[in-house]
Amino acid sequence: MDAKAGPPDVVSAQTLLSYDGLAFLRALIEGTLPPPPIAETLGFRLAQADLGRVVFEGEPQFRHYNPIGSVHGGFAMTLLDSALGCAVHSTLAKGETYTTLEMKVNLVRPLTKDTGLIAAEGRILHRGRTVGTAEGDIKDRNGKIYAHATTTCMIFPAKG
Amino acid sequence: MDAKAGPPDVVSAQTLLSYDGLAFLRALIEGTLPPPPIAETLGFRLAQADLGRVVFEGEPQFRHYNPIGSVHGGFAMTLLDSALGCAVHSTLAKGETYTTLEMKVNLVRPLTKDTGLIAAEGRILHRGRTVGTAEGDIKDRNGKIYAHATTTCMIFPAKG
Amino acid sequence: MDAKAGPPDVVSAQTLLSYDGLAFLRALIEGTLPPPPIAETLGFRLAQADLGRVVFEGEPQFRHYNPIGSVHGGFAMTLLDSALGCAVHSTLAKGETYTTLEMKVNLVRPLTKDTGLIAAEGRILHRGRTVGTAEGDIKDRNGKIYAHATTTCMIFPAKG
Amino acid sequence: MDAKAGPPDVVSAQTLLSYDGLAFLRALIEGTLPPPPIAETLGFRLAQADLGRVVFEGEPQFRHYNPIGSVHGGFAMTLLDSALGCAVHSTLAKGETYTTLEMKVNLVRPLTKDTGLIAAEGRILHRGRTVGTAEGDIKDRNGKIYAHATTTCMIFPAKG
Repeated sequence: MDAKAGPPDVVSAQTLLSYDGLAFLRALIEGTLPPPPIAETLGFRLAQADLGRVVFEGEPQFRHYNPIGSVHGGFAMTLLDSALGCAVHSTLAKGETYTTLEMKVNLVRPLTKDTGLIAAEGRILHRGRTVGTAEGDIKDRNGKIYAHATTTCMIFPAKG
Repeated sequence: MDAKAGPPDVVSAQTLLSYDGLAFLRALIEGTLPPPPIAETLGFRLAQADLGRVVFEGEPQFRHYNPIGSVHGGFAMTLLDSALGCAVHSTLAKGETYTTLEMKVNLVRPLTKDTGLIAAEGRILHRGRTVGTAEGDIKDRNGKIYAHATTTCMIFPAKG
Repeated sequence: MDAKAGPPDVVSAQTLLSYDGLAFLRALIEGTLPPPPIAETLGFRLAQADLGRVVFEGEPQFRHYNPIGSVHGGFAMTLLDSALGCAVHSTLAKGETYTTLEMKVNLVRPLTKDTGLIAAEGRILHRGRTVGTAEGDIKDRNGKIYAHATTTCMIFPAKG
Repeated sequence: MDAKAGPPDVVSAQTLLSYDGLAFLRALIEGTLPPPPIAETLGFRLAQADLGRVVFEGEPQFRHYNPIGSVHGGFAMTLLDSALGCAVHSTLAKGETYTTLEMKVNLVRPLTKDTGLIAAEGRILHRGRTVGTAEGDIKDRNGKIYAHATTTCMIFPAKG
């Protein structure tokens, strides 16, 4: 993805905890940190990150197809899980971590290899001390909606 | 995957509609029909299909990782979307088709590349004339649960 | 609720089908049609209806309490089920009907009898020919959020 | 409900924390503790409680009806929120408390005043240290299913 970042990789817990959430996401966008393996495997990337709002982009391809002739729902779910989780991640202070407890996704239109570039946007809805919720959707370049989702994340305070 | 089936591919609507749901799924298992592209891209396969119950299998790998050091939730969601959707698919008469309207997934334990083989089982809960619902879960070989889900599918009657 | 409307009651299928969705909801607000029994039992009412957007209002009371000292989650769920379902209902043409297939609700703050008036707003997200989805939330008079939800409804075409 | 228990009421935090979860639920069944206000308002009751499994019972009535001629979805949601939450509650050690973060409900058949007695059963699916998930359903006396649900609860450790 980015020459600076090298091949896809995960980051150490130490590296993760040295950033606040928004700075971490922006380091992924800038290529200071390597892209995650899943992003290369499925073909999507973090495109924008602000406090409480992030956007992932990807392009549905033949390799994402299910047997019955359209993109597998898992592709939309993966992008939405990233977008909604990172909307929560963007609100973390340095040292805080989070995990996704659940996500619910509506698939309202089929994605195909002719859909073109899609954007999965995540937006924070509620940020408590130990719980964060977010919503989001997948739209094409014309603003047509293909899927929408909500998530519940648990937030762990900084240690020590 | 299977020599008989050739490379990953989708099937034509005509082929799809020539099978009842269970026969279609068993043709995928036996390799009479090609594996779907997504199954090769992410590395999972349909392993069992009975009336109202199907099992997919896969192995979490490094290429499924998110940036923060565990398997991306989208991998579990993709397997569960397959398993729950196909539990509904297994109940279709010849000519009937279906689409997944929504899925809700709980992620209760992280998957890692050390988890080993996992099974995503889908089970029908309600089969009406135009709506089917299913539940399911992901477990490892020891029966430990990693995720569980429910789905709502819409069923379209055979035409003509 | 309204003198014109008489005691709580349901309406006949014939009456229901004589209105388009928005006109039906406005007849409930104006009291041309009687308030539904559940609205009196739990104490809430339809307050606003526009195309694709409705608002219900209610006031959490002691009679809504669970054993452990706050308002039962079912109160918020009932208002949200009304708000989200009616957001879909508001889009129905004369003769179309609908049913709620599922709803997912996040409870992000406890309601108490000191919360005061709350508004449950429902907003359409996707309106297809046979499926509608909506989102919504519960807020107090200061705009603080207590719950949010999404729903999937099935829409039945007008007959013959 | 029960002469011993007196009128519907909530219990103090001190009383709540003096029981483990299962003993608390059984004291509600036995009438040692008063029934909660919501149970009288809507007409349902806790009928069985075991470790990780509880059953509520109720009878759909005209006062639960929505405007369009069947029982409001909120009635099923309230019973399921009780059943699934209490399935988690039944696993609490003395001093632990919990809150429901979210619930997702499928409504698969309409309830009417002719349905008769219904049972809402909740069953624990995952019990971690700080998170519990549960599933459940509503069935009539013939075992016919009307709704099913899953929930995510947060568990707070005993203080001090």
